[in-house]
Amino acid sequence: MESLKLIEIVGTAAFSIAGTFAAMEKKLDVFGIFIIAFITALGGGTLRDILIGELPVKWIFDPSSAIIVLLSTIAGLLFTTVIKNYHNVLLFFDSIGLGFFTVVGIQVGIDLDLHPAACIALGTITACFGGVIRDISLSNIPLIFQKEIYATTCILGGVIFFLLLKIGVPKMPVEVICLVTIVLFRLLSVRYHWQLPVIWKPVKPSS
Amino acid sequence: MESLKLIEIVGTAAFSIAGTFAAMEKKLDVFGIFIIAFITALGGGTLRDILIGELPVKWIFDPSSAIIVLLSTIAGLLFTTVIKNYHNVLLFFDSIGLGFFTVVGIQVGIDLDLHPAACIALGTITACFGGVIRDISLSNIPLIFQKEIYATTCILGGVIFFLLLKIGVPKMPVEVICLVTIVLFRLLSVRYHWQLPVIWKPVKPSS
Amino acid sequence: MESLKLIEIVGTAAFSIAGTFAAMEKKLDVFGIFIIAFITALGGGTLRDILIGELPVKWIFDPSSAIIVLLSTIAGLLFTTVIKNYHNVLLFFDSIGLGFFTVVGIQVGIDLDLHPAACIALGTITACFGGVIRDISLSNIPLIFQKEIYATTCILGGVIFFLLLKIGVPKMPVEVICLVTIVLFRLLSVRYHWQLPVIWKPVKPSS
Repeated sequence: MESLKLIEIVGTAAFSIAGTFAAMEKKLDVFGIFIIAFITALGGGTLRDILIGELPVKWIFDPSSAIIVLLSTIAGLLFTTVIKNYHNVLLFFDSIGLGFFTVVGIQVGIDLDLHPAACIALGTITACFGGVIRDISLSNIPLIFQKEIYATTCILGGVIFFLLLKIGVPKMPVEVICLVTIVLFRLLSVRYHWQLPVIWKPVKPSS
Repeated sequence: MESLKLIEIVGTAAFSIAGTFAAMEKKLDVFGIFIIAFITALGGGTLRDILIGELPVKWIFDPSSAIIVLLSTIAGLLFTTVIKNYHNVLLFFDSIGLGFFTVVGIQVGIDLDLHPAACIALGTITACFGGVIRDISLSNIPLIFQKEIYATTCILGGVIFFLLLKIGVPKMPVEVICLVTIVLFRLLSVRYHWQLPVIWKPVKPSS
Repeated sequence: MESLKLIEIVGTAAFSIAGTFAAMEKKLDVFGIFIIAFITALGGGTLRDILIGELPVKWIFDPSSAIIVLLSTIAGLLFTTVIKNYHNVLLFFDSIGLGFFTVVGIQVGIDLDLHPAACIALGTITACFGGVIRDISLSNIPLIFQKEIYATTCILGGVIFFLLLKIGVPKMPVEVICLVTIVLFRLLSVRYHWQLPVIWKPVKPSS
């Protein structure tokens, strides 16, 4: 397990539990639940690694990620017998995963000497696209395209990350502040129904 | 055609025919049917090759796979005039493809010196994810996430593969036994409605 | 911006505007609209680059594509206040993108010394799969699988490209003829409802 940083372990576990809950809503069988948890937790990082050409993807050779997903899925399934309000639990773990994985993705970009904008893009892809691939797999329009300040939260966290770094704050506190900002902002945005403007006009259906 | 092993040719042809039948259910045009057959037959192997970094994917440079898909699609379309029960035919070819492609994927993992668990994962991805990408493309929730012992069949076949190898059975009969087990188990599981447990509890819709 | 050829800029801008209009139909928020425009414009080229192993994908390191998408999306959003008939505008920009990106993809294949059939496949993937990934993201069955002469138009353009090249026409006019053929053929095919044959027979739903 030494090949994964703590931050990746927490993010993977949080997203696996969020994925488990999302999969149970769709009445999948236990194997389907595991696969959806896996996609939610590792889909964003996998897409990121494909886009930057970091292949083979790490989880093919290193079983630790898969083991974390498996244990978290089992924990998620056990939770279900004691938990009343699924939606809040799902939201909580999802926010945790969002914060941790944004920082992981930004770090990957920094290691590649990318421009801050590209680092923030990688952070956002790492944090958001596991959920996007999960939603598409479950035949839903990805939530992040529709409502709620979701990806925008990651971008905001990323901007704060590089602003703090620029004014000389050391890396470690910057990571923690970025992470906490994202988790809090995400929770607050759902609590108070913040959302981005929707521009819409009726359109004739395409042919 | 010498660049493809017999086992790949049979798997490709079987999945192309299964894909052709699935596409016809959705009233696609002939080009759409060919693309869906192509995705069904080559999608799983393509995803596998992307994940392990075996790029460019083989079918870009080597037209033999595309030719097999094309011929099988034409054969599938001709079948439709003489066949009464689509569903059984689709199931039969799908099971054949499942067995052959699991063995192909396991072999790719062995060639990379991967751990048996990773080999079985590659076998399952090769065999199942063509169908997953097809189902997503047709706006269905992938069947394998929902019901029927599908991916589980590949995993079972993979476990038998490595158990037999471990007790000293030579590779060739191991491949045949693995393949036959998967095809039979898949057919029996559909015939007798075997399925994995579904864990479900009503959940408040997300926001 | 010197890293992008003019042909790529026009194709990217046209597809971004088409994507913006498609996203507005689904009532996405402004961030969702930008992502869908990005996927429409760069999804096909990204899939092509993954398949041929040209990684990292160019837009990770080079922000010019993202900037074009952003500006085009803003332009598309501004258009909406003055435009009456969305559908025709969407169709027009989509056809422009289709023509330009087919030529871009064929060129990539030629640079890799691929067989003309593989070049045409890359051209078609470049031009069509941004739209496919967009449609899948928006929970639609991709239009190109269903009706309208869409991918077929790219294939036709590609065949004309290589026929003209074979009889000795220089590259530059060949590219222009290929491009114009695709745009015109696409517009005419929609205007006159040309479509490929659909083969369909009722099928028992797969259990």
